[in-house]
Amino acid sequence: MNIQTKRRLVDIAVSTRVRLARNLKSKPFPNRADEEALKSVCKDVSEAIFESNSYIAEEFKFIDMNAIGDSEKERLMAAHLISPNLALRSHGAAVMVNKNEQISILVNEEDHIRIQCILPGLALEDAFETANKIDDLIESSVEYAFDDEWGYLTACPTNLGTGARMSVMLHLPALTLTNNIDKMLHTVTRCGLTIRGIYGEGTESMGDLYQISNQKSLGVKEEEILLSVKSVARGIIKREREVREDLVEKNDIAIQDKIMRAYGTLLYAQKIEAKEAMHLLSVAKLGVDMDLLPEANIETIDKVIGNIYPSLLRYAKGIPDEANIVDIRRAEYIRRMLRKNDCGMQEVK
Amino acid sequence: MNIQTKRRLVDIAVSTRVRLARNLKSKPFPNRADEEALKSVCKDVSEAIFESNSYIAEEFKFIDMNAIGDSEKERLMAAHLISPNLALRSHGAAVMVNKNEQISILVNEEDHIRIQCILPGLALEDAFETANKIDDLIESSVEYAFDDEWGYLTACPTNLGTGARMSVMLHLPALTLTNNIDKMLHTVTRCGLTIRGIYGEGTESMGDLYQISNQKSLGVKEEEILLSVKSVARGIIKREREVREDLVEKNDIAIQDKIMRAYGTLLYAQKIEAKEAMHLLSVAKLGVDMDLLPEANIETIDKVIGNIYPSLLRYAKGIPDEANIVDIRRAEYIRRMLRKNDCGMQEVK
Repeated sequence: MNIQTKRRLVDIAVSTRVRLARNLKSKPFPNRADEEALKSVCKDVSEAIFESNSYIAEEFKFIDMNAIGDSEKERLMAAHLISPNLALRSHGAAVMVNKNEQISILVNEEDHIRIQCILPGLALEDAFETANKIDDLIESSVEYAFDDEWGYLTACPTNLGTGARMSVMLHLPALTLTNNIDKMLHTVTRCGLTIRGIYGEGTESMGDLYQISNQKSLGVKEEEILLSVKSVARGIIKREREVREDLVEKNDIAIQDKIMRAYGTLLYAQKIEAKEAMHLLSVAKLGVDMDLLPEANIETIDKVIGNIYPSLLRYAKGIPDEANIVDIRRAEYIRRMLRKNDCGMQEVK
Repeated sequence: MNIQTKRRLVDIAVSTRVRLARNLKSKPFPNRADEEALKSVCKDVSEAIFESNSYIAEEFKFIDMNAIGDSEKERLMAAHLISPNLALRSHGAAVMVNKNEQISILVNEEDHIRIQCILPGLALEDAFETANKIDDLIESSVEYAFDDEWGYLTACPTNLGTGARMSVMLHLPALTLTNNIDKMLHTVTRCGLTIRGIYGEGTESMGDLYQISNQKSLGVKEEEILLSVKSVARGIIKREREVREDLVEKNDIAIQDKIMRAYGTLLYAQKIEAKEAMHLLSVAKLGVDMDLLPEANIETIDKVIGNIYPSLLRYAKGIPDEANIVDIRRAEYIRRMLRKNDCGMQEVK
């Protein structure tokens, strides 16, 4: 076997997200509510957190969507703390975010309350437990819209029941490069799960990142959802790892050529769209895993991936970027970050 | 004007070539000659050079095509000292090459004798004078096939008359990148000249290199041919220079992006075909001219261009390269050469 013992294996499970959708009893859903009703929901939810006696109250800050500018909205979206839908609301929408930015409570998005917990790696149990704790805290001071037969009532019927969506974000460059991804996605669908792009519903996959999540939340228990998402995610991770080992062993020059050219392009491009940048950085991560890029630092690449998100808000608003300003700045940022490592300025460990 | 005084302008006229086609009286043309006749032509021509009392005799060496291997044939072809046609002849073909490899005398290619002089830059007068001197020397000891009405007789009627072909190789990346090349090529044709790829008749252009040469050699004097090729070449050089200055002044990010990505690909590719390599190196040369690549050394790039020629002989013989061996070695060579400069190992001037 050619597998070197010192190889820096790059994580396949990027992050885990658990989201619970909740609505307040006897208040209209946000899309049907007037400004007064929306504001009263904001008040109820924020009081449930900030006027509780829990230590959690200290952890959160309240952000009114009307009180922040576009660049902060962009940042929160890129960190997946808010959705484009929430960012575009003109009034009565807010988010509560905790200090380490792993928990966010969206108020008046599609539902009154969306509790969300994002953790690095594959951590469904921890993420579910955390979201549950916030759910219990809010429920201790408000009354949820709940039906004994239908479970939690939600604006969209797909969220009825548990109101839970559990997702795992997977980085699958080897399955993609070897044209095995479609087969894999087909399997996921057959298991009753769904695949989405990295910025949620309706967005396409970027940088070989795929979000696997449960399709239905009605008629199943939260624990069942958790187990099925976890077992499918584990199966895909295993397959991606096998394909990577296979690529290392085969020493395939065509794959190596693709990886090295991707890295060269990242170091020299003068303008680059988010989608291309995500693709090239994804390929570079695979290169690190395959021990082809000793000069590259995986933490830097991950940091860059986190910061080069497309201008979601600009796109949502339909504003074109004819002067390529964003693409030029993105290319500059990528060059600066990746070259820093090349000059040996990496931290000594 | 933004034009910086310290800019290293990169030459547009790469080389000049003058070729004279001659045949011996009362001997069949090579394609109709038997082995004995071919050998007697070789003998006559080599004696004309080596048994002359001229200093020229000392300058040349005689190379029998049957006595050298494929790799030496490849090298001579890449240096344009022999043609693929000569390399593929199985017997009675030879070349005489002078020490600095600017003059070659091909024996039994399509014609008995082809005298060829290649000089760097735009140097039609010097190249013609040199070829003429060799022509006079050979003529002093053999009798040429010459007709008072038709001039020098040649195997192909397109070479009848003066038997002269004068060409200038031009590097036109800016005209190509800005989609002005077709208009330019049309103008050349209208002036009665012809355009060919860098490896002669029937070959396509590589690396934005174009060979401009006279179409007819019958009914015109050598001096007329020389003047028309020179004036058209000068016109194209002027236009290419204007477009380059325009690109520098406009500071066009899309062009800069193309140039820098080309350089990044050269530094990182693990396998590369000659055609792509020539294209990227051509774009890199333009980048040096536009002052975008301070780390690149133009002499190194030119040296690399001279050494990464496609495997002409392999192609001519129809041998595929399924293992990509040549493409892998080519990529290694390019990386090694270009990176040498990046590490500050450039000669101090």
